[in-house]
Amino acid sequence: MPPQTPLKSRIHTAVTDAVTRARGAQGAAVPARLSEALDYATTPGGARIRPTILMSVALACGDDRPALTDAAAASLELIHCASLVHDDLPCFDDADLRRGKPSVHRAYSEPLAVLTGDSLIIAAFDELARAAAEAPERGLSLIRILAARTGMPGGICAGQGWESEQTIDLSAYHCSKTAALFVAATQMGAAAAGAEPDPWAELGLRIGEAFQVADDLRDALYDTDALGKPAGQDDRHGRPSAVSELGVSGAMKRLDDILSGAIASIPSCPGEAMLAQVVRAQAEALTPVAPVIQRG
Amino acid sequence: MPPQTPLKSRIHTAVTDAVTRARGAQGAAVPARLSEALDYATTPGGARIRPTILMSVALACGDDRPALTDAAAASLELIHCASLVHDDLPCFDDADLRRGKPSVHRAYSEPLAVLTGDSLIIAAFDELARAAAEAPERGLSLIRILAARTGMPGGICAGQGWESEQTIDLSAYHCSKTAALFVAATQMGAAAAGAEPDPWAELGLRIGEAFQVADDLRDALYDTDALGKPAGQDDRHGRPSAVSELGVSGAMKRLDDILSGAIASIPSCPGEAMLAQVVRAQAEALTPVAPVIQRG
Repeated sequence: MPPQTPLKSRIHTAVTDAVTRARGAQGAAVPARLSEALDYATTPGGARIRPTILMSVALACGDDRPALTDAAAASLELIHCASLVHDDLPCFDDADLRRGKPSVHRAYSEPLAVLTGDSLIIAAFDELARAAAEAPERGLSLIRILAARTGMPGGICAGQGWESEQTIDLSAYHCSKTAALFVAATQMGAAAAGAEPDPWAELGLRIGEAFQVADDLRDALYDTDALGKPAGQDDRHGRPSAVSELGVSGAMKRLDDILSGAIASIPSCPGEAMLAQVVRAQAEALTPVAPVIQRG
Repeated sequence: MPPQTPLKSRIHTAVTDAVTRARGAQGAAVPARLSEALDYATTPGGARIRPTILMSVALACGDDRPALTDAAAASLELIHCASLVHDDLPCFDDADLRRGKPSVHRAYSEPLAVLTGDSLIIAAFDELARAAAEAPERGLSLIRILAARTGMPGGICAGQGWESEQTIDLSAYHCSKTAALFVAATQMGAAAAGAEPDPWAELGLRIGEAFQVADDLRDALYDTDALGKPAGQDDRHGRPSAVSELGVSGAMKRLDDILSGAIASIPSCPGEAMLAQVVRAQAEALTPVAPVIQRG
C-alpha cells in the first residue's frame, strides 16, 4: 500500500473533526449558512498536498504525538482552504469555480465568503491551541510557524499583497505566495514530532518552488474542466509565471531540477526514504506530464 | 490621575509594537502598501475600549506577567481593528469612513483591505504565542479565549454570519456580534494575570450589552461627522437595534440598568473598586448622554 492511503484517511478525519468543532455543537444556536459554508469550503478535499507533506515529515521524524500532528495537518489545511476562499473573491481572482463546484462567494454570497475565510483562519489557530494542551511548547512553536507562513510580513498574505505593488520582488513574492505553506508543512511536521524545525525549511521552499512551476504549467496547459477552476488566470491577470518566462519545455526542465534538489535537501531522519517517495508521488500527481526525476 | 491615562500609553505601545512586528524588519522585502495599510488600520487608536478593559481586569487581578497582559491587549485590539476593516468592505457596510478618515478599502483598495484584516487576525495569534514563551499554559488559554470569541461558532464572525440568516436568534446574535470581544477582554485580562477566566465572562457580557445599546443610541442620535463613520447604518440595513425596539428614552434606561448589573457582577479581587470606576468611565465616554449610574 503506498504511504498516501492511510495518510489520506487520517487527514480527512483530522480536517473533518476540526471543521465540525468550528461549526459548533448540534442544536446550538449558530448561523446555519456560515456553518454550512465552512463545510462547503473544505470539501471535497482536493489533493490535500500540504497536510500530506506535513504528516509525512512528522512520520519520518517519529510522530510521537499523533494528536498534535493531526491538529497541525488540519490547521494547515484550514488555512489553505481559507486562502482559496479569499483568493476567489471578486476583488481578487473573481473565480466562479473551485474544485469543480461554485466558489464560496458564488454559492453563499460575498459576505459569507469573507466570514468563511476569517473563521477558518481562526479555527486553525484554535485547533493548534486545543491540541497543544498535551505539549504546550510544541504547540506554541506550531502556532508561530503557521502565523509566520500565513500572515505578514512573510506569509501568504504578504504573497497576495505583492500583487498590489507596482514593482514586485520576485523572490519574496514566490517565497511568500506559494512556498510559504509548504515551508509551514515541513517545519510543522518536524515540530509536531519534537524535531528542530529550522533544518526542514529548505525542503519546504523547494517543494513550494516545484509546485509553483507545476501550477504555472497546469494553468497554461489545462482547460477549466480539467482544472476544476478557471484556466489561464496567470496570463489574464498578468502574473509572473514560469511558463511565460521559460516556455513549457523550459518550465518542465526546471521542475525536474527543483524536485531533485528538494529530495536531496531532506534532513537525515529515520523515515528519509519514505519521505522522498511521498514528495515524488505528490509532485507527479500534480504535474501535467510526470517529470523525469533523478532517483538516487 | 485617572486610571486610563497610564493604561492608554501602555496600550498604545503594545499595539504599536505588535503592528511593527507584523510589518516586518526595516529593509526587508515586504509588500509596502499592505505593510502601510496595517498601520493605517490600527491608527489613530480610537477609544481602545476593549484593551483598556482587558488591562484593567489584569491589573485588578495582580498583573504579575505584564508582558503577557500587553500581548493580550494588543492581540484583542488587532482583532477588533481587523473586524472593522472587514465590516467596512463593500459587501458588508460599504462604509467610506472610519474614525474620521477613509476606510481601508477606500484608501488602499478592496484586495488590500481583505488582506489587512487577514494579516491582523494572524498577527493577533502570533502576538499571543510569542509572548507565551514565558508562560505557555496561560498563553494557550489566551489563544483559546480569543479564538472562541472571534471565530465560529460563537465569536464575532458568527455575529456577522447571523446577518445572512432569514431568522436571527437575537440572543446569540448580540452575544456574538458585540459582547464577544468584551467577554474576551475580561476573560483574557484574568487569564493573563493567572486568574480563572470563567467567573469573568458575565462582566464581559454585560459590558458588551451596554456598549451595544450605547452604539445603537449613537447610531440613531449622532451624525456622520460626530461619529467619524456613517450614521444611521442600523436603520439603513434593517438591523435589530435597542432604539427601534425601546425608543431613545427606553434605551437610555436600559443602558443604566445593564451598567449597574455589570458593576455588580465584578468578581471579588484586589482591584475591584478601581475596575468599577474604569467600567463607568468607559461607558460614560461612549454614551450620547451620560447615564445615571447607581453608585454603591
